[in-house]
Amino acid sequence: MKETEVKRSILRVENGKARYTEDRIVTEHPITIKINGEEFVTLVCTPEYMEDMAIGYLASEGLIRRYEDIEDMWIQEEEGFIHVKASKLNPYTQNFQSKRYVTSCCGMSRQGFVFVNDAMTAKKMTGMHVALSPEDCYRLMREMQQSAELFHGTGGVHNAALCDKEGIILSRMDIGRHNALDKIYGHCIRHDISINDKVLVFSGRLSSEILLKVAKIGCEVVLTKSAPTELAVQLADQLGITAVGFIRHESMNVYTHPERIHVQVHEGHSEK
Amino acid sequence: MKETEVKRSILRVENGKARYTEDRIVTEHPITIKINGEEFVTLVCTPEYMEDMAIGYLASEGLIRRYEDIEDMWIQEEEGFIHVKASKLNPYTQNFQSKRYVTSCCGMSRQGFVFVNDAMTAKKMTGMHVALSPEDCYRLMREMQQSAELFHGTGGVHNAALCDKEGIILSRMDIGRHNALDKIYGHCIRHDISINDKVLVFSGRLSSEILLKVAKIGCEVVLTKSAPTELAVQLADQLGITAVGFIRHESMNVYTHPERIHVQVHEGHSEK
Repeated sequence: MKETEVKRSILRVENGKARYTEDRIVTEHPITIKINGEEFVTLVCTPEYMEDMAIGYLASEGLIRRYEDIEDMWIQEEEGFIHVKASKLNPYTQNFQSKRYVTSCCGMSRQGFVFVNDAMTAKKMTGMHVALSPEDCYRLMREMQQSAELFHGTGGVHNAALCDKEGIILSRMDIGRHNALDKIYGHCIRHDISINDKVLVFSGRLSSEILLKVAKIGCEVVLTKSAPTELAVQLADQLGITAVGFIRHESMNVYTHPERIHVQVHEGHSEK
Repeated sequence: MKETEVKRSILRVENGKARYTEDRIVTEHPITIKINGEEFVTLVCTPEYMEDMAIGYLASEGLIRRYEDIEDMWIQEEEGFIHVKASKLNPYTQNFQSKRYVTSCCGMSRQGFVFVNDAMTAKKMTGMHVALSPEDCYRLMREMQQSAELFHGTGGVHNAALCDKEGIILSRMDIGRHNALDKIYGHCIRHDISINDKVLVFSGRLSSEILLKVAKIGCEVVLTKSAPTELAVQLADQLGITAVGFIRHESMNVYTHPERIHVQVHEGHSEK
């Protein structure tokens, strides 16, 4: 089993004093998904829940539609491979395979930007399964952050949690923002957990790619402590997703679809 | 000229009150670099200093060696293209072109992880041009953050600054972490500014890909307020780069090559 963090000697400088001490540092683990023997994609991840991550990734890319589409799956951890056997892959998405092995959220993307596969797998959320008060949002964000701090002291990871109004159902961390969401998605697919009545709570920025991932997973509400981009807000608007950002100190911004956030709106001149 | 941010009506919830107000949100702009008429890569960026970004990207990928390698360059902003005319591309890196259009830092990477081109363009830093005290590190980080806050209130971007001991020489922001560094690198190549005697100050996490970018740029010291990954620390160690992280409240961690940080080390039992 690969370690998710390692100890390392560092020079710590604090209060004008410097001394060598031991620190915990998060690891990066490259793992290549092979489908029916062929290399499909390489993900750089925190080495835990890697099967869930692969399942979530393949589902969000539209390659599989349900867990049963995977006939067999095994990990060669040392070599860095996840093998997937699946004879019934979605034939339509397979045609676009050659266009699908580039990601983006740190600044590089596939041509076209909102892609054929995204259009096929992103779901438009028309339901009203979730209703939250601002206090629910603050509390879920607080619980997600506390749970993240409890398990990982290294500071170098992104955190995501699937919640209902009562609290956290599942929480995952990863050095890759997409991976944390894929690990949650994969777990839900595997264990047949419904998602459209849940809330995704996320530590990172809401880029267009993250928003599309939320839409593919099929979640009505996404909460983050960080900022969104304009394209993410546009997509959330079009896809019916309630996007809430900057959740800090009992305050927050509702960017889209505020109908799922139960709060009385004061009319009058806008100010900030 | 594309806008780097737009205004948008949002529902702001604060102190138990909710009202519609106007917020500034950062934009995402996909732009494709075409080399001699052929599509090379699509970068998703904040639309400013895009020529510098393209120059920095091509240089850090080893495709060009100096600014003079570019014969002509023009932007079609509406269409989202940067055209580069260059007849003398590095023939060796060109052979690996097909392997080079996938990125990583959010969790997806090219096969192989430390790549042929990285090995060719990452420089080993053996010099001792830079010497900093802890106070220099704190001050440069503070100046970088203040400069970032001054110009951009949207919160959704990464910031990078090229500094010397006296302060900031150049500061750039982008929604993509790599892009902010490429914009700095491109500017330096264009204006023939030496880099190995400077310091890179960065807002984001130090992943292996960011560390490799620092090595390609040719900087001896990188300062960040965030955490590094273990692979980034290993690479910094091997490539002779001083990596300093968690610069917060007059404290910091020196992960590698502390010889460029001038501080008296207290011996004795390590503790934390």
